[in-house]
Amino acid sequence: MMTYEQQYDVYLNEIQAALQAACDTYLPEESRVCQAARYSLLAGGKRIRAVLTMACCDMLGGDWRAAAHFAAAVEMLHCFSLIHDDLPCMDNDDFRRGKPSCHKAFDEATALLAGDVLLTEAFEVIANAPLPEHARIEAARLLAVGGGSRGMIWGQELDVTFEGKPLNEELLRKIHRNKTGALINAAVQMGVCAADGTAEDAAALERYAFDLGLVFQIVDDVLDVISTPEELGKPIGSDQENGKVTFATIYGPQGALELAQQINDESCRALEQAYGARAQFLIRLAGQLVTRRK
Amino acid sequence: MMTYEQQYDVYLNEIQAALQAACDTYLPEESRVCQAARYSLLAGGKRIRAVLTMACCDMLGGDWRAAAHFAAAVEMLHCFSLIHDDLPCMDNDDFRRGKPSCHKAFDEATALLAGDVLLTEAFEVIANAPLPEHARIEAARLLAVGGGSRGMIWGQELDVTFEGKPLNEELLRKIHRNKTGALINAAVQMGVCAADGTAEDAAALERYAFDLGLVFQIVDDVLDVISTPEELGKPIGSDQENGKVTFATIYGPQGALELAQQINDESCRALEQAYGARAQFLIRLAGQLVTRRK
Repeated sequence: MMTYEQQYDVYLNEIQAALQAACDTYLPEESRVCQAARYSLLAGGKRIRAVLTMACCDMLGGDWRAAAHFAAAVEMLHCFSLIHDDLPCMDNDDFRRGKPSCHKAFDEATALLAGDVLLTEAFEVIANAPLPEHARIEAARLLAVGGGSRGMIWGQELDVTFEGKPLNEELLRKIHRNKTGALINAAVQMGVCAADGTAEDAAALERYAFDLGLVFQIVDDVLDVISTPEELGKPIGSDQENGKVTFATIYGPQGALELAQQINDESCRALEQAYGARAQFLIRLAGQLVTRRK
Repeated sequence: MMTYEQQYDVYLNEIQAALQAACDTYLPEESRVCQAARYSLLAGGKRIRAVLTMACCDMLGGDWRAAAHFAAAVEMLHCFSLIHDDLPCMDNDDFRRGKPSCHKAFDEATALLAGDVLLTEAFEVIANAPLPEHARIEAARLLAVGGGSRGMIWGQELDVTFEGKPLNEELLRKIHRNKTGALINAAVQMGVCAADGTAEDAAALERYAFDLGLVFQIVDDVLDVISTPEELGKPIGSDQENGKVTFATIYGPQGALELAQQINDESCRALEQAYGARAQFLIRLAGQLVTRRK
């Protein structure tokens, strides 16, 4: 019986191999744009979305090694969104995970195209994944729904639109649900579809996914207030500087953390009722996001 | 028996309906990003790529009405590339088809996301197309290959990299082959796959596609020299201003047109040998691109 940490590493190794294979096949060295895409894609990070794809597939008895290709596609799409988000016309961030952001390490045109290439090739990775045709089609659909006009991009738009403007909690939840939750849900559902899960699986895990996304964002808001730049690998206090309304400003850091804990507890209880001991990994993963300090 | 022009309009109507349906389903009015995407997507144009998808499917006896969804996806991807190409960090073009380009009519962040949304939703259109699963997967693969790191985006990178630098004809052909040819070939091959065509069909039409793409670009180069801004709907002489090496500078406008005519003639002869009278529409379409004046 593996520990949670060992299991996480097993998934992570498989994801890393799938990402490396995707780089070798779809991001040729001779292209500077593809070099920029690799720079951002292989910069590390916790790969939470990809791990969720693997773990959901695994919990439902699917071929989680094959699902690593879906997981890699999710990471590629996530990475595209970070690169474009950091561009001067968007958040204008010079650093990402403690390293210069893509347009700083390369240049703006290259970063723009690097994002475009990661988004495009994510769908090629799905099209060529070693899974049944119906699963590949469903995965492409799920990724587009989560990443597109009624998911992540809609969330990015809302985020930019309401920057510095007064927000209530309902609107804040709507932004998070789209900007973060939708892609996390796509990652989860791609795991479900890789395992040929049922509509009940999809519904149970959809709740888990959106709750997890919300908790992730609440904790993000809190860390921007209580963490240090060294711990976080990026400047802190940026939300306050931008006059942003966040869960930390609405509830205070401590109250926001309590809210996150409460959402997490209820969400994990529901998951355990549905899947029993099989849900342990997903429950531990969600719990880590509440207590993380970076 | 329909004339060429009538047939073109039949295809165009079906494409227009598919694009409108895609807008209604995937680009909600409430989103300004989606409004920007619609602004660019519905701005018109000849829809050559989409018509090629329809015509190739039709020639091979496929369900060309169903192929309109693949055709719409190609146009969406093409439109994304134009929006990002026009951005200040790329070509910095203020006008497109005689109208303000997307980032001028809206703003840079909105145009960036509008491009992203069109690229993402193109794959959702394919995933939901009323065609067999294997055709949808193959179409997604074809679109990613034509639009991605070894196709159009690679061509855009080459184009930016060699801007204002001395070029020989070989390099010029390589840029055109990737920047323009690859997506035209994807459009053609998506028609082939919608019709469940053979490997021989794919090979014969690949030659046609890349030749047509090259002819299109050569004529583009020539029109930039000999046309008027009124005819073209955009400023002329920009290539010369940027010190660009083009087919018009290598061969002179007249010589370049003769080369285009020669490539077209040989290409169409091969197509006629393979498909006889059924190739007439594709041959007429290719011919129009040689003699076009805008």
